[in-house]
Amino acid sequence: MIAVFLANQSVKIRRQRMLRRRQGHALIRMLTAGICNTDLELQRGYYGFEGVPGHEFVGEVSEADDRSWTGRRVVGEINLACRNCDWCRRGLGRHCPNRTVLGIVHHPGAFSEFLTLPEANLHAVPPSVSTEHAAFVEPLAAAVEILETVRIPQGADVAVLGDGKLGLLIAQVLNANGLKVHQYGRHQEKLRIAERVGVDTEVVRRKLPAGAYDWVVEATGSSEGLRQAVGMARPRGTVVMKSTVHGSVQVDTAPVIVNELTMVGSRCGRFEPALRLLKARRINVDGMIADTFALRDAAAAFKRAAERGVLKVLLKG
Amino acid sequence: MIAVFLANQSVKIRRQRMLRRRQGHALIRMLTAGICNTDLELQRGYYGFEGVPGHEFVGEVSEADDRSWTGRRVVGEINLACRNCDWCRRGLGRHCPNRTVLGIVHHPGAFSEFLTLPEANLHAVPPSVSTEHAAFVEPLAAAVEILETVRIPQGADVAVLGDGKLGLLIAQVLNANGLKVHQYGRHQEKLRIAERVGVDTEVVRRKLPAGAYDWVVEATGSSEGLRQAVGMARPRGTVVMKSTVHGSVQVDTAPVIVNELTMVGSRCGRFEPALRLLKARRINVDGMIADTFALRDAAAAFKRAAERGVLKVLLKG
Repeated sequence: MIAVFLANQSVKIRRQRMLRRRQGHALIRMLTAGICNTDLELQRGYYGFEGVPGHEFVGEVSEADDRSWTGRRVVGEINLACRNCDWCRRGLGRHCPNRTVLGIVHHPGAFSEFLTLPEANLHAVPPSVSTEHAAFVEPLAAAVEILETVRIPQGADVAVLGDGKLGLLIAQVLNANGLKVHQYGRHQEKLRIAERVGVDTEVVRRKLPAGAYDWVVEATGSSEGLRQAVGMARPRGTVVMKSTVHGSVQVDTAPVIVNELTMVGSRCGRFEPALRLLKARRINVDGMIADTFALRDAAAAFKRAAERGVLKVLLKG
Repeated sequence: MIAVFLANQSVKIRRQRMLRRRQGHALIRMLTAGICNTDLELQRGYYGFEGVPGHEFVGEVSEADDRSWTGRRVVGEINLACRNCDWCRRGLGRHCPNRTVLGIVHHPGAFSEFLTLPEANLHAVPPSVSTEHAAFVEPLAAAVEILETVRIPQGADVAVLGDGKLGLLIAQVLNANGLKVHQYGRHQEKLRIAERVGVDTEVVRRKLPAGAYDWVVEATGSSEGLRQAVGMARPRGTVVMKSTVHGSVQVDTAPVIVNELTMVGSRCGRFEPALRLLKARRINVDGMIADTFALRDAAAAFKRAAERGVLKVLLKG
């Protein structure tokens, strides 16, 4: 089988031995996989990563202990928890300290003809959801996770800062959940994607509104974003941190303390609500696919995904 | 009357005209006043401050609209709210955008023979509480504010990072409120103050415990403290930010996001619960008074307060 291999900041295609599935794991043929900013950071060598990346995927089960999985179209949660520690027992395997992570931490990823994952991690894709759409389940789940980490009152005004892939999914998810979303970004054409489902959008020219929101979601992907988000929050407001920016970020702690803000980190989430949203066609992902490449053209795909302003780039198995 | 005057990083004594109280305000003779880190920062010129500093005080009312105040020993809340905006109507005058602040923002402070404050800001000091002890009400209220900003379950383990003035008050307040406090600091002799009321303390030599607490209060006063506090928090844990450090702080946002931490800024608080704690003798403040100076020796007092490791320095009216 062939797989994408990252090492020394280069993206190579490698022919390698067929994966063997462990007991309780399924062998999955990759159908489509999305390139995420984390993959670009892995390529840049930020985390000393070497191996097969990829954690956003849709696949078809080739083999599994439970035969009923065979032939089914699936997506899969990316954390492989130990299922045995306190965190796992509390249903928070995503925080299991012994976990490996698909395509990120010690488990070969989805940019490959085949991958393996515990059967417990799999979710069947409903027939009405296309494979391209299902490729958004993982980032969509990360957007839905916001609603699990903070309790935002129905109908509340929420600012979403950033109009990249994650920002657009977040704005749509919050909007679909009955919040009044105001999305701030730099790209008219991207903001239109969220506008189409009813999000109020604004192209940021110079100044962002100061102290204007009780709820601000930071999804710019830039180190500047957090400072801006803090400035947009009202006293006693909450800033949800969704951007994973490599390295340290300069934060002026004075406004956080003086205004008694709450800043909450929020990461990846559960797949069920994300699949439900896609099935109900509440999220516009069509406009978010920038390009599609064959797996063997992964180097070109990574290049394309790293271009400024490009939304989702997909690989085909 | 004489007053301390800060300008161009110098501490001067000025003879100035007697203050006139406005309607609704009391004229108060200062009995004792505490020098806080914020005063030292004002002196260093960080906020372009010029004027009479001082916001921790105990005084005796000389004149007031309500005659029953006259002659009473009082402490006073430091924010002068407009009493007319949304924040004030919600009882959160501390966040009033139009507020002035005693000795900090456009209202002459307490390092003076006399000061004025709205009568609504005053709290009578119970006879059983000494003037020296009452001087700790303002910072003690800031410590109590933690319990208003986050809901920590009874009996929970809480780490307090830092053994300065604020750290010692915080550790004692949380301990008095039924939490299991573990205070980390660098000074054995300071930690003993909290130990005496039952706080578990540890002199930090090299490494702090990693990912060990659901609740961490950062009160080091150093820019390094926030990074350390984030490292001590367990996944889904909460870091309460109490240090006001001037300027930007480097924060590695990755652990905040990956571990889905909550960081909450917390500032000054209500005086009632602080007075109650002092009255009930639940807080050991005696050991925290490092030195006392006459008002006219304020320059020496500021110098002493700025020395490394010195706890509370008081001025006498």
